[in-house]
Amino acid sequence: MPATPAGKNQKRTVSKLKELGMGVVHDVAKTKSPAIDIPLRTLSNTTFNEGKRIIEMGSDKQQRFFFNVGMVKKFTETFFLASKCKELIDVGKTTSLRDLFYMAKPDFERASKEEYEQEESDAITEDLEVTVDSLREELNLFASNRGALVGELTLVDQGDTIDGRRMGSGGWSIPSIVEPNIVQFGRCDAKFILLVEKDAVWRRFNEDKFWKQHKCILVHGQGQPPRGVRRLLYRMVNELRLPLYVFVDNDPWGYYIYSVVKQGSINLAYESRRMAVPNAKFLGLSSFDREKYGLDLSVTMKLKDEDVGRAKQILSYPWFQKKEWQREIKKMLSEGRKLELEALSNKGISFVTEEYLPGKIRNKEWLD
Amino acid sequence: MPATPAGKNQKRTVSKLKELGMGVVHDVAKTKSPAIDIPLRTLSNTTFNEGKRIIEMGSDKQQRFFFNVGMVKKFTETFFLASKCKELIDVGKTTSLRDLFYMAKPDFERASKEEYEQEESDAITEDLEVTVDSLREELNLFASNRGALVGELTLVDQGDTIDGRRMGSGGWSIPSIVEPNIVQFGRCDAKFILLVEKDAVWRRFNEDKFWKQHKCILVHGQGQPPRGVRRLLYRMVNELRLPLYVFVDNDPWGYYIYSVVKQGSINLAYESRRMAVPNAKFLGLSSFDREKYGLDLSVTMKLKDEDVGRAKQILSYPWFQKKEWQREIKKMLSEGRKLELEALSNKGISFVTEEYLPGKIRNKEWLD
Repeated sequence: MPATPAGKNQKRTVSKLKELGMGVVHDVAKTKSPAIDIPLRTLSNTTFNEGKRIIEMGSDKQQRFFFNVGMVKKFTETFFLASKCKELIDVGKTTSLRDLFYMAKPDFERASKEEYEQEESDAITEDLEVTVDSLREELNLFASNRGALVGELTLVDQGDTIDGRRMGSGGWSIPSIVEPNIVQFGRCDAKFILLVEKDAVWRRFNEDKFWKQHKCILVHGQGQPPRGVRRLLYRMVNELRLPLYVFVDNDPWGYYIYSVVKQGSINLAYESRRMAVPNAKFLGLSSFDREKYGLDLSVTMKLKDEDVGRAKQILSYPWFQKKEWQREIKKMLSEGRKLELEALSNKGISFVTEEYLPGKIRNKEWLD
Repeated sequence: MPATPAGKNQKRTVSKLKELGMGVVHDVAKTKSPAIDIPLRTLSNTTFNEGKRIIEMGSDKQQRFFFNVGMVKKFTETFFLASKCKELIDVGKTTSLRDLFYMAKPDFERASKEEYEQEESDAITEDLEVTVDSLREELNLFASNRGALVGELTLVDQGDTIDGRRMGSGGWSIPSIVEPNIVQFGRCDAKFILLVEKDAVWRRFNEDKFWKQHKCILVHGQGQPPRGVRRLLYRMVNELRLPLYVFVDNDPWGYYIYSVVKQGSINLAYESRRMAVPNAKFLGLSSFDREKYGLDLSVTMKLKDEDVGRAKQILSYPWFQKKEWQREIKKMLSEGRKLELEALSNKGISFVTEEYLPGKIRNKEWLD
């Protein structure tokens, strides 16, 4: 029996991989030049869907031909990597992009007489994802795992029952693949999910048993949440029907973390609809919090040039056009200061868990 | 009741903090200039203890006076931070260095009229650690938590029972504070501990249930293991009496990770005796592995200039003077190549868990 039996999505992926191969066989049989259609992963082929409020990939495609000196290498790589992924799914094992790169390296260097870099295999893998319309995780490929979870949820991970209420101070380390064939949800007593940007602040929330008192699931992604965390948030929001609150630093990077969780990123536009959570709410820190909570100016930091540049860029994104968001970002720019989550400690060790956040949630003081 | 009742070590720390304060009170009572003795954290005050095989801090100290224009600021900071740590232990809460910095920032800026940087509070905190001879974690301060654990060990984390045999694909996220008042060990069926440098490779071991078949505890530290992981390894080795095997990339950074786990680091020499594991064994990757396992040259990478420089530096460290280690490092330099853990995938997805490592352990093929 394979280590991880393929789920519905993996089976669908395998038939799509087979289809891809059969397409080429048919081309050859019809003495046509073998070709594959690959959706374009470019900014120009990316749009913000106002209705769904997520960033999406458009329908532009490029053809990759076998009988083309400039394309033959990539064409071959696509099929090599596709066959490796099919093999992974068949034996029920998962692997990293780095492993995949090493599996391909000697063969490709022998064939091309050039050094083979991981950027190449990564790019081809992304092509493959969009071509067969599967998440990387459905190809049994994993990214790094960062992030942890505790709280009012029981889940099953590879057959083991994980009770989020009994995970101590460390929590359950969120794996990079959380597809339904690996992770299933059990009993849930949570009323919402709280994503905290930083693990150190998450620790404060866990130590104060915030999740118990406020009946929630507490997650951190160690900065920008990795794919596993985003996908898990997506699944929890949609399958458990829970609201998601995001709690980040008051700086442009905090806004950006929120924005990627909410509507996806331009780079990975094709994955938004399986990762983005358009209903996510931004709880803070807000540019207005310093005055509101009477924080000393000295616990803020001066915006650096790169912060200002980034904030201006974010100000122009279609998904930040709401009046409240413009006001929020402009306030940061006019103050010229940013504020980290840890700065709230100046009001007391547990001010953040006992006063700040409960108040924000109670009064629905969030940005959408 | 405090969130985390103070353990024996915390109680000892509190009395030492009080002693520190009382010392100053006595100085004042005797109309002496108040002063504290702070052990020197410098390279010159660091030695390699050949007998214990750990890096140690020497006995040199510097005096910090209150009535000294150049020292008064640091003197005051030391006591401010000491009082904050005492408060943390009293209320049974832990916090991050960043939090501590923000607690101090407004007061210090008002007093000194200068911008207060975290480097300052971090340095004073390290002074405090060595002065009262406590680990940072015993002052209830935590670092970032990285790393995960699965395997043949049950442990108790903040009162919750964590069964390492039932932690799914994610594992238990190792917290940054694993002192005995927070983490206790329960049933252990492991015969050894395996520390894997990279989380992606750790995942391979976990997916293949290596820990079950070989009866071990499987840990990763996401690169250079953070303090929590090092301290946990130390405790498991000493309290559970288990050997520790380290499995890292074949590059100078891999050697260095092993060396810090084994004998401590120069920077944190004063913590070696509570973190270093002098019996740790280096399982690989070795510079001789490529030839031995018939790996294609193309799965190795050329050493960069900085790699060569670092390897030469390591070659000169007193703790790498054994004949076998000199041979190992010189082989890397003469080949001019390095080899990553993932490169073993070229021999098959599970070559590393099914052949490479079991063989190394069976034949005791390690460096000490």
